[in-house]
Amino acid sequence: MAKKNAFYAQSGGVTAVINASACGVIETARKHKDKIGKVYAGRNGIIGALTEDLIDTTKESAAAIAALRHTPSGGFGSCRYKLKSLEQNRREYERLIEVFKAHNIGYFFYNGGGDSADTCLKISQIGEALGYPLQAIHVPKTVDNDLPITDNCPGFGSVAKYIAVSTLEATFDVRSMHKTSTKVFVLEVMGRHAGWIAAAGAMASTKSLELPIVILFPEIAFDKAAFLARVDALVKEHGYCTVVVSEGVHDADGKFLSDQGLRDAFGHAQLGGAAPVIAGIVKEGLGVKYHWAVADYLQRAARHIASKSDVAQAYATGKSAVELALKGRNSVMPAIKRISDKPYKWKIEVAELKDVANKEKFMPRDFITKDGFGITDKCRRYLAPLIQGEDYPPYKDGLPAFVTLKNMAVAKKLPGEFKI
Amino acid sequence: MAKKNAFYAQSGGVTAVINASACGVIETARKHKDKIGKVYAGRNGIIGALTEDLIDTTKESAAAIAALRHTPSGGFGSCRYKLKSLEQNRREYERLIEVFKAHNIGYFFYNGGGDSADTCLKISQIGEALGYPLQAIHVPKTVDNDLPITDNCPGFGSVAKYIAVSTLEATFDVRSMHKTSTKVFVLEVMGRHAGWIAAAGAMASTKSLELPIVILFPEIAFDKAAFLARVDALVKEHGYCTVVVSEGVHDADGKFLSDQGLRDAFGHAQLGGAAPVIAGIVKEGLGVKYHWAVADYLQRAARHIASKSDVAQAYATGKSAVELALKGRNSVMPAIKRISDKPYKWKIEVAELKDVANKEKFMPRDFITKDGFGITDKCRRYLAPLIQGEDYPPYKDGLPAFVTLKNMAVAKKLPGEFKI
Repeated sequence: MAKKNAFYAQSGGVTAVINASACGVIETARKHKDKIGKVYAGRNGIIGALTEDLIDTTKESAAAIAALRHTPSGGFGSCRYKLKSLEQNRREYERLIEVFKAHNIGYFFYNGGGDSADTCLKISQIGEALGYPLQAIHVPKTVDNDLPITDNCPGFGSVAKYIAVSTLEATFDVRSMHKTSTKVFVLEVMGRHAGWIAAAGAMASTKSLELPIVILFPEIAFDKAAFLARVDALVKEHGYCTVVVSEGVHDADGKFLSDQGLRDAFGHAQLGGAAPVIAGIVKEGLGVKYHWAVADYLQRAARHIASKSDVAQAYATGKSAVELALKGRNSVMPAIKRISDKPYKWKIEVAELKDVANKEKFMPRDFITKDGFGITDKCRRYLAPLIQGEDYPPYKDGLPAFVTLKNMAVAKKLPGEFKI
Repeated sequence: MAKKNAFYAQSGGVTAVINASACGVIETARKHKDKIGKVYAGRNGIIGALTEDLIDTTKESAAAIAALRHTPSGGFGSCRYKLKSLEQNRREYERLIEVFKAHNIGYFFYNGGGDSADTCLKISQIGEALGYPLQAIHVPKTVDNDLPITDNCPGFGSVAKYIAVSTLEATFDVRSMHKTSTKVFVLEVMGRHAGWIAAAGAMASTKSLELPIVILFPEIAFDKAAFLARVDALVKEHGYCTVVVSEGVHDADGKFLSDQGLRDAFGHAQLGGAAPVIAGIVKEGLGVKYHWAVADYLQRAARHIASKSDVAQAYATGKSAVELALKGRNSVMPAIKRISDKPYKWKIEVAELKDVANKEKFMPRDFITKDGFGITDKCRRYLAPLIQGEDYPPYKDGLPAFVTLKNMAVAKKLPGEFKI
C-alpha cells in the first residue's frame, strides 16, 4: 500500500485537553513516517476539509507540537458544523472525498463529541461507496461526558476538577461571609442535557469536610418548593449554602430556568442565565443575600487546573487512534475502559462508531440522591479518579506558556471555491 | 509592661490570601511569647469582639496555622460591619474596650480594606480616650487594590493573576470557535469603583502574542457607540474578541450598566450583571454570537492559582504588623514599597492610618489607553510583577488540601449579651 497522508480535525466546543489529543495523534504519526505521510489539520474543523483549507502540521516544530499537550482550546480552530445526511447533501460528502483524494489522505481522525462520531461514521461509509476507502477514526472529546461506551470522555475530567475546586473555594468564601452578608452562593455550570459537570460540584464536599452544597441536575425536573425547602434547611443548619446549577435545568414541562423571558426597561429581550434566576428565587423565597457566578468558557478552557488523568487520557486516545489506523481499523473510536477505582487503573479499548454515534449518556438515577439534590457514593466513586492529579502548564511572566501554532496552509490542488 | 494578649480579625470581602496574613500574624506572635500572650481571633470579624465571641488560636496546631497560608477565605469568619462614628455609637467603642480589657488584649490587628483602616484608627483613638491604650495595627487586604500609600494591596495580585489567566484561556477558546460560532466573549470582573481587576484582563495580551481584548473600566464613562466600533473593528480584523467588563462600569450619568431594570415575564425585578448587558449590546449592535461569564466569588477565592508575590506580601504584612506592635507602634499599617519593577523588588514600609483611612486609589488616567479600552505600557509595568510566580496549595484526592480550623471559643468573662 502506498503511503497515505492523514487528516485531523477538531469539532464542536473545545476543551482544556483537546489539543492533548491532537498532540497524541501528531506525535504518534510522526513516529510512523514509514506508514503515515504528512498530518494535515483542518483549519476550523471539517470546514477546512470542505474548503480545502488544510494546515501542514509538518511545519510545526517538535516543541510546538509537544506544547499542544498543555495548551487549551483548539490549536487548529474548531467549528460547529454538522454535515447533513447523505440524502440531503451528498455534494458535501463527495467534496470531502475529492479533497482527500487530491491530497492523498487515507486516514481521517475526527476529534469531537456525539455529532462528530456520526459524521466520522458517515465519512467512512461514503469513502467506501465512492470507491475511495478511508480509515475514519473518531477521537472522543466532550466536556459534557455524554458519550456512550467510553467510561468517561476526555475533556470532562478537567472541567470536573475546575468545578470541584471552584465550588470548594467559593464555598469557603461564603462560609466566611455568611454572618452579615452572603448566605447563598449560586454557580452556573455547563451541561445542557446531562448533569455530569454539575455533579462535580458535589465533590467539593467530602467525608472529612462536609459542606452544604445543593446540585441542580438537568435530569431532575426543577421543583421550586422542594429546592427552597432544601436551601432553607441548609442555611438554618450551617448558616450558608452553595448551589451548583446546570445550565440545562428545566421544570416538569421542559421549560429551561434560564428562559424566563427577561426584558430590560425598554422591553428588549435579554438572555439570562440559570444562576441569576436561581438567585432571584432564593431572594424572593427566603429573603437572604446571595451572590452568583456563571463559569461559561472559563470552565472548559481552564487548562491551568486540568486533571492529570484527563490530560493522560486525552493524549492516549489520540495516540491510540493512530495505532488503530495502522492496524487497519475503520469506523472505530478509542474508548476508555476503567479497570479499578482505587487505585485508578484504566486502559484503551475499541468501540464501534455505530454504537457511539448519536447516543447521549445521562447521569444514571442511582448516581443522584433520592431527594435529587446531591450525588450518591456510587457517583462519588465514579468521579473521584477523574479529577485526580494536577498537570500544570509551564509559566512565563506569570502566565501559562501556551503555544500558538504557525498553521501554515497547504497549497490548494482543486480548482474553484467550495461554498459552505 | 505586663504581657498582653493580641486580637486579630478579618474584615469585609475575603480574598485568596487574607489567611496568609493571618498566618503571618499568628506565626510571628508565637515567636514572641515573651512579649505577646495569646492571639485571640474575632469570630466573624469585629462582631466577634463586640459579642465577646473570641477564638483561642493557641488551640490550633502549628501545622493548622501554617496551612492558613495556602487556604483562601477568612479562616475565622469575616463580616461586613462598619462601626459608626464615635458620636453616633459611642457604646460600641466602649464595648470593644471592655472586651479587650476583660481579656487583657493590648494589641489590635485588623485585616481589611479602607473602611477597616478607618475603624482601626478610631479604635486606637478611643482606647487612649478611655484610658485603655491599645496598639492598633491595620493589615492591608482588598482585591480591589484601592488602598492608598501601599504600592499594591495583598489580595489583588492573586485575583489579577486569576483574571489574566482566565482571560487568556477563554480568549484561546473563542479564537478556536469564531469561524462558525462565538465571536465575542464577555467576562465580568469585580471592581465597583476602581478598574484594577479589569486591567489585569489586558495582561493576557503580550508583546509576543497580541490578542484582541477590550477592557471596560469604571473610571471611563461607558460610550456605547465607541465600544461597538471598537469591538466591530477587532472582530473584523481578528474574527473575534474578548471583553473584560468591570462590574462598576456606568454611563456618563453614573447609571450602572448592570442596573437595566430587568423584569421577568411576571414583571419581577431581576438583578442582572454587567456581562449579560454588554453581551446584549453586542448582539443588538453587531449581530454576532457571544458568550458571557461572571467570575464573582470564583475570582477572589481562587487560591489554586494565587500569585506567588501576592502570597509572600500577604504573609509579610501580617508578620510586619506584629513586629511593628513589638516596636510600640500604633495607628499604622505595613505598606508595600516597590523598589524595582524588573527584577521585582519590594520592601515593607510603615504608613500612618490617618493617611490610609477612607481614601480610594483609582486607576491613574495614564494607566489607561487614550481610547479608554486598554492599558498602557506604564500600567503593564506596574501589573506584571504582581502576577508573578505560582504558589500552588497541596492537593489531596484531586482537591486542594485547605484547612478548616477548630475555632474554639474563649470562655466569656463579661455578664450579659451585647446586641449588635
